[in-house]
Amino acid sequence: MKAPQITIKDIARELGISPSTVSRALKNHPDINLDTKLHVHELAEKLHYRPNTIALSLRNRSTLTIGVIVPELVHHFFSTVMSGVEKVAHQEGYNVIICQSKESAEQELKSTQALFQSRVDGLLISVAKETENFDYFSEVIDNGVPIVFFDRIAPGLDADRVIVDDFQGAYNVVEHLIKGGCKRIAHLAAPQNLLIGRNRQFGYVDALRKHHLPVEEGLMIQCDNRESAITETINLLSQPNPPDGIFAVNDLTASGVITAVRKMGLRIPEDVAIAGFSDGLIAQVTDPQLTTIEQHGYEIGEMAAQLLFQRIKNPDAIKESVTKLIRTHLVVRGSTKPIVEK
Amino acid sequence: MKAPQITIKDIARELGISPSTVSRALKNHPDINLDTKLHVHELAEKLHYRPNTIALSLRNRSTLTIGVIVPELVHHFFSTVMSGVEKVAHQEGYNVIICQSKESAEQELKSTQALFQSRVDGLLISVAKETENFDYFSEVIDNGVPIVFFDRIAPGLDADRVIVDDFQGAYNVVEHLIKGGCKRIAHLAAPQNLLIGRNRQFGYVDALRKHHLPVEEGLMIQCDNRESAITETINLLSQPNPPDGIFAVNDLTASGVITAVRKMGLRIPEDVAIAGFSDGLIAQVTDPQLTTIEQHGYEIGEMAAQLLFQRIKNPDAIKESVTKLIRTHLVVRGSTKPIVEK
Repeated sequence: MKAPQITIKDIARELGISPSTVSRALKNHPDINLDTKLHVHELAEKLHYRPNTIALSLRNRSTLTIGVIVPELVHHFFSTVMSGVEKVAHQEGYNVIICQSKESAEQELKSTQALFQSRVDGLLISVAKETENFDYFSEVIDNGVPIVFFDRIAPGLDADRVIVDDFQGAYNVVEHLIKGGCKRIAHLAAPQNLLIGRNRQFGYVDALRKHHLPVEEGLMIQCDNRESAITETINLLSQPNPPDGIFAVNDLTASGVITAVRKMGLRIPEDVAIAGFSDGLIAQVTDPQLTTIEQHGYEIGEMAAQLLFQRIKNPDAIKESVTKLIRTHLVVRGSTKPIVEK
Repeated sequence: MKAPQITIKDIARELGISPSTVSRALKNHPDINLDTKLHVHELAEKLHYRPNTIALSLRNRSTLTIGVIVPELVHHFFSTVMSGVEKVAHQEGYNVIICQSKESAEQELKSTQALFQSRVDGLLISVAKETENFDYFSEVIDNGVPIVFFDRIAPGLDADRVIVDDFQGAYNVVEHLIKGGCKRIAHLAAPQNLLIGRNRQFGYVDALRKHHLPVEEGLMIQCDNRESAITETINLLSQPNPPDGIFAVNDLTASGVITAVRKMGLRIPEDVAIAGFSDGLIAQVTDPQLTTIEQHGYEIGEMAAQLLFQRIKNPDAIKESVTKLIRTHLVVRGSTKPIVEK
């Protein structure tokens, strides 16, 4: 009979530290202090710990495949990211397989397991809105499959990341509304538990403050889909002191604002200027076309894949995890007023 | 030293018949005549053929995963199909992994190999525009992994299929334009090597004929993207006898028609009525919203997945392949004129 396999988790539990600390201590990672390393190595020896024997033997052959988990592929942003990922992967002779989490933490876990079982050589992940527990990602990494997170990251996890500068993007597009003469700008915002929702709202607030415009709670409305954007815009514009500019957290929401403003017989951008965020297909199809923020999804995908291949090719290299920030870019179209020179 | 493994292909080559005929003959499929069966069995015995020994031993454990290959996930239609597939798969306790072919035959082959190596239990495929050789699909099927094709099928291959009634959909939407009073209707068509492109054009032509309207070569233009739709529409409307209705092969193309008609200062639908095909997000975001054809992508995905699970669960059942036709549905919005009662 075989003795039960000792895992990194057993050592972690015994010492009251995290599995990822144990993993790094065993690899002599410079972030871990000497004292912890000694304790970990001592206990590992005592318990006859052998590193991931089963997992490694299962995984001793590269499949030349990487896996990607995204919330929803229908979003233009994620499919643009995929194009960047696929370009780099194909150059490296790798295939790409994709799973959708549909914003569900349970589905994300199942997809992670399925891709791990498919023996992918590495994973790229943008986390679901729902996810709050990131333990299973640590487990995957501890079992020798590197992960790079992009756009929506797993906070507190020791892994490479590629993120969008949402704050600066929102700041720039709101400043563009102000420079076009808007004095009272509303914001249709994403849920504030999402980092991107918070960062875009911070950017909006900061631009107003910098230009000495009032920041009003009543002008910040949580609403990130087309249908409720129509209702909320009609409410906003029916107020005694209606806004003359609206910044929506994404282009689909902004398309609802356009529909509502037209419904009320107001002119765009003269009566109400409108801006979105994403620069997908929708921004070109609305009338007028949308002023918005291009997120450079293709570059995000390229960068994330490049970081992943560095990890795949040098699995034993001790290298601190890196975070890359991708700059956004303001795209000016007909839904906002031209800048007024002072 | 091992003797070289005899495959179905060797038998097929020797007898001058297709590998899929050999495969079915070995399984005693009722479609294959007795004479062929006898020849195949005789030669198989002579050559010491053993059915897929290696492949079967690699595949003796279910991974509870199915694979899907689609041309492009950014299209609303394919992501709707995916939702239907995922619903059925999750009910069955299966995961779904996806690959994009990006309309490239080479990429489709690589994705098929990658998913086969990932030991998926079955495949759902909508073939790339480029693909002309379907041999590798036969090989996958012969190695015990069932395939169901949807929307874009592999002609001549013995496999289950779920297809959209493109002909009837196009017929219905063009008839709606005619009943609204259009007398001269142009068609922006997809490449005619694609079955869906041909079927939609047939539907257009048939509706004109039935209502005794002239069918003119000059009113059928190959153009299935937004940018060229803008140019082609301006050309069409600058003719001495311009069309009063335009049927575009998909919604994105129709959005280009709307942009061009507005640019020329004409009214929609009074001067030019416009219809699309797909009923994605775009159809709701244009101004006016698009009259179009709903393809029931969700039902297509459900149906395709159900057929696949029937094959996965009864791998040895001799069951002829089936083709399911999904009916489309006309969605009337502001881009076309109301029906004139006679």
